[in-house]
Amino acid sequence: MHITLAQLNYHIGNFDVNYQKMADAVAVAKSEGSDLIIFGELATTGYPPRDFLEFPDFIARSNEVLDKLKALSTDIGIIVGAPSVNPKVEGKDLFNSAYFFYQKETQRVHHKALLPTYDIFDEYRYFEPNYDFGLVEFKGKKIALTVCEDIWNIGNENPLYPVCPLDEMLPMGPDFIINVSASPFTVMHAEERKQIVKDNVNRYKVPMFYVNHVGAQTEILFDGGSIVAGANGNIYKELPYFEEAIETIDLDDVMSSNQDNAQTDDNLREMHDAIVMGVRDYFGKLGFKTAVLGLSGGIDSAVTAALAARALGGENVRGILMPSQYSSDHSVADAEQLAKNLGMPYDIIPIKPMYDAFETALAPAFEGTEFNVTEENIQARIRGLLNMAISNKFGNILLNTSNKSEMAVGYGTLYGDLCGGLSVIGDVYKTDVFRLARYINKDGEVIPNNSITKPPSAELRPNQKDSDSLPDYDILDEILFEYIENRKGPSEIIEMGHDEALVKRILRLVNINEFKRYQTAPTLRVSRKSFGMGRRMPIVAKYLS
Amino acid sequence: MHITLAQLNYHIGNFDVNYQKMADAVAVAKSEGSDLIIFGELATTGYPPRDFLEFPDFIARSNEVLDKLKALSTDIGIIVGAPSVNPKVEGKDLFNSAYFFYQKETQRVHHKALLPTYDIFDEYRYFEPNYDFGLVEFKGKKIALTVCEDIWNIGNENPLYPVCPLDEMLPMGPDFIINVSASPFTVMHAEERKQIVKDNVNRYKVPMFYVNHVGAQTEILFDGGSIVAGANGNIYKELPYFEEAIETIDLDDVMSSNQDNAQTDDNLREMHDAIVMGVRDYFGKLGFKTAVLGLSGGIDSAVTAALAARALGGENVRGILMPSQYSSDHSVADAEQLAKNLGMPYDIIPIKPMYDAFETALAPAFEGTEFNVTEENIQARIRGLLNMAISNKFGNILLNTSNKSEMAVGYGTLYGDLCGGLSVIGDVYKTDVFRLARYINKDGEVIPNNSITKPPSAELRPNQKDSDSLPDYDILDEILFEYIENRKGPSEIIEMGHDEALVKRILRLVNINEFKRYQTAPTLRVSRKSFGMGRRMPIVAKYLS
Repeated sequence: MHITLAQLNYHIGNFDVNYQKMADAVAVAKSEGSDLIIFGELATTGYPPRDFLEFPDFIARSNEVLDKLKALSTDIGIIVGAPSVNPKVEGKDLFNSAYFFYQKETQRVHHKALLPTYDIFDEYRYFEPNYDFGLVEFKGKKIALTVCEDIWNIGNENPLYPVCPLDEMLPMGPDFIINVSASPFTVMHAEERKQIVKDNVNRYKVPMFYVNHVGAQTEILFDGGSIVAGANGNIYKELPYFEEAIETIDLDDVMSSNQDNAQTDDNLREMHDAIVMGVRDYFGKLGFKTAVLGLSGGIDSAVTAALAARALGGENVRGILMPSQYSSDHSVADAEQLAKNLGMPYDIIPIKPMYDAFETALAPAFEGTEFNVTEENIQARIRGLLNMAISNKFGNILLNTSNKSEMAVGYGTLYGDLCGGLSVIGDVYKTDVFRLARYINKDGEVIPNNSITKPPSAELRPNQKDSDSLPDYDILDEILFEYIENRKGPSEIIEMGHDEALVKRILRLVNINEFKRYQTAPTLRVSRKSFGMGRRMPIVAKYLS
Repeated sequence: MHITLAQLNYHIGNFDVNYQKMADAVAVAKSEGSDLIIFGELATTGYPPRDFLEFPDFIARSNEVLDKLKALSTDIGIIVGAPSVNPKVEGKDLFNSAYFFYQKETQRVHHKALLPTYDIFDEYRYFEPNYDFGLVEFKGKKIALTVCEDIWNIGNENPLYPVCPLDEMLPMGPDFIINVSASPFTVMHAEERKQIVKDNVNRYKVPMFYVNHVGAQTEILFDGGSIVAGANGNIYKELPYFEEAIETIDLDDVMSSNQDNAQTDDNLREMHDAIVMGVRDYFGKLGFKTAVLGLSGGIDSAVTAALAARALGGENVRGILMPSQYSSDHSVADAEQLAKNLGMPYDIIPIKPMYDAFETALAPAFEGTEFNVTEENIQARIRGLLNMAISNKFGNILLNTSNKSEMAVGYGTLYGDLCGGLSVIGDVYKTDVFRLARYINKDGEVIPNNSITKPPSAELRPNQKDSDSLPDYDILDEILFEYIENRKGPSEIIEMGHDEALVKRILRLVNINEFKRYQTAPTLRVSRKSFGMGRRMPIVAKYLS
């Protein structure tokens, strides 16, 4: 039996495009003599469709795609993820299902049992869980169909669900397992995914065909890496990361092979590639080609520009240099050098005339007050306004250049440097921004070395340095990681050896700045706890604050 | 038996304040000879604590409050909602529970069975559902304990859950039902709440004591309205809306009374009162006293200012009048009159000098382009910057003045008029803003009549009117309501008699402007489908767009 894995980049709600991609893949599979083609989870709609799932019209359009795919199933089995309507009156209105079409008939509609409802996942918001397990027979083989999370409840110390679908299905004697997935990227996730597939195969002793999505849906990044695993736990085939792929596999070869062909993982490279794909897809799926961003001469805007240039082409990324009276001599020179290295067009617009106009206009209201953070924010907001003016006039999307450490402690100006349609490195701690910069420069200087080595500064008052108001980034990032990713409390973090006053100050800053993060751009998610839809915090709370 | 309902305004994560409020209420109940006091759902933590529930330190602090409450339970039963740790390794780590303390002992910890996971609710994200039903005995009475949603799965045509907790418990013969709730306000919800309590009592023929929260938690508003219902379906007692209340009831009186003492409802009054409470609590819980907002002379900023003045006092709401060359003669006069009517301080800051400075600075980049929406946005963003400068300098929170119709179709400038820490009327359609304005003026002119009667305009170019680019608001709002609240598709809305091209244009505008709503302030929620945490849409989607 020949089985085709179709690892595709879907577009949420773009039913025509999603259908056409799948129809093209079916044609490829047929031309390769395949018996069966497998698409991803909720492939008709794209993942995650979120509250569009609550619109009957949206489901009807997904069903139209299913009908058209069914019509293509002459002499080839087609397995495709899609929502299906729950026929019972009780419970949620939908299931998250895998449809099996063959000879223009629906052979089975198998529903997902384990519905992730944590972090970025909201599946129980929409779907009723399945408790009806059964295999599907196809050309003399018995197949155990599973959907994404269904294979993730084994081998954990703390299983999230009381049920394990494959434990229910194995006694029925499947010849192999199919998993249709939409499993998002995080650093480390490719390794975890391979391990969970191996764990399943080692437990059940039958091969597995695991098909993932690839591509970005706003902040959610899918890295692909679809897997064929042999019954003895070897990775027979792993599809590439960050690109579409259609691959036909001979089941007999899988059964007889002992080779392990897993890709080697490099977390830094994968973070880099994931972000580049995220920028490319955000623009492509919104129908935009060009970006704009402010270039300060610092490392954050430099890394953002370099990643955007790799995604869109340097000529499509416009840099705006907006020096103030507090900008250092090197700032403009470093930014210009960066733009030249990347082949970016750029403008230089000094902000002093606008700043002076605001100062004059506000003088009556500000009489008797002193220069403070207000005036720093005015500078940042003039820059935000200039960036947005260029964005509006020329149809570029403004890129936000803030890093995760700044976003965490609120070191940034709302409606100023926090402007932008997409946060490119908002899930990258400052210490990792330095690592990314060096990775980008590995084959030669792209980011001016001076941008990497000089002390970070917002340059909003004379001789300002980040270290005036924040601890060293290596200490800050350690504390943030323990609080944000590991959800440790203050006493635990202090017990790890960190200064008590500092820990309390940092945790307080994280919590009181929730209001800023609430109003900033979606952030390309590369960690297991990114700001955005996966981290939901109340604003008026008073906890550690 | 005497039973005390404690309808309190909790503060999320503010464990000391929440404990002290409950301890004070216990003292009141004891002084009134009460046998039993009932607090709300998740009363120790405030509702919704959201992802703070994932922090073990947060749960530990809630447990400290429980220990202190237990210590107060000498000679009085105390029922209080709080998270409890799931002792099983499988499943979610927590239950959403009601603790029953008496004589310094835990008599029962009863877990919520029905976990709302829709709209603003994310309970299955955190909690394992209960399937262990049982009563608690207290002073010879058998009590059925329930938590909020547990009583909401009856009498629906489309029950969300396969289980009905009280159907399980009724055969055990309870003498009465207790429900600890955190049931948020929407227009109509007070009526629905009374109806659901009546439906339960009519079905089970035993009295019910229903205790709700009051107060606002960022966008979520709790109206109170706790209920004592007799076994024959009468509302024996309803606690007030929008204020704290502690009330001790004699169970014998409930048993013997046939009186129905339900409050009469007035949707417009309740919307008004809910928003005023929402503003007051947002400021109070964040520790702020003063607001700032831009006054355009139009109805949206006027209604926002009037509501804020009722919440904070007119003297604590600062208006900024920022006329441009396109402002009409009446704009400044109407805004000044409003400020005087409300006793608000105000500043007048013409924006032309800043606008000219930007025009000059951008001239090289904009060479050969024409005045368009970019220049309109620059004006709006100069105003946003001025508002934020006043906010930063004087420690006021900037109020966003956008209405729901504008937010829906993206008729507003990101980082301009969409600035602000809190959206006051962002869940009020424009047609309802007019109704609110007339309600505010019912005892005399607060909002200048001219602001109500003149044609709405953004005044960003000569002779601009909203009606140049939008249909009449009564038509627009009807289409928006069918799409947003009722989730109807385009063909259904067209079939209702609306113009096809208009419907398609409006639905497209709603969907392509998701990126703006993503970055705007939390919105006080008064409808059953507000923008914000209860409506989750992907940005890069292409559906009806």
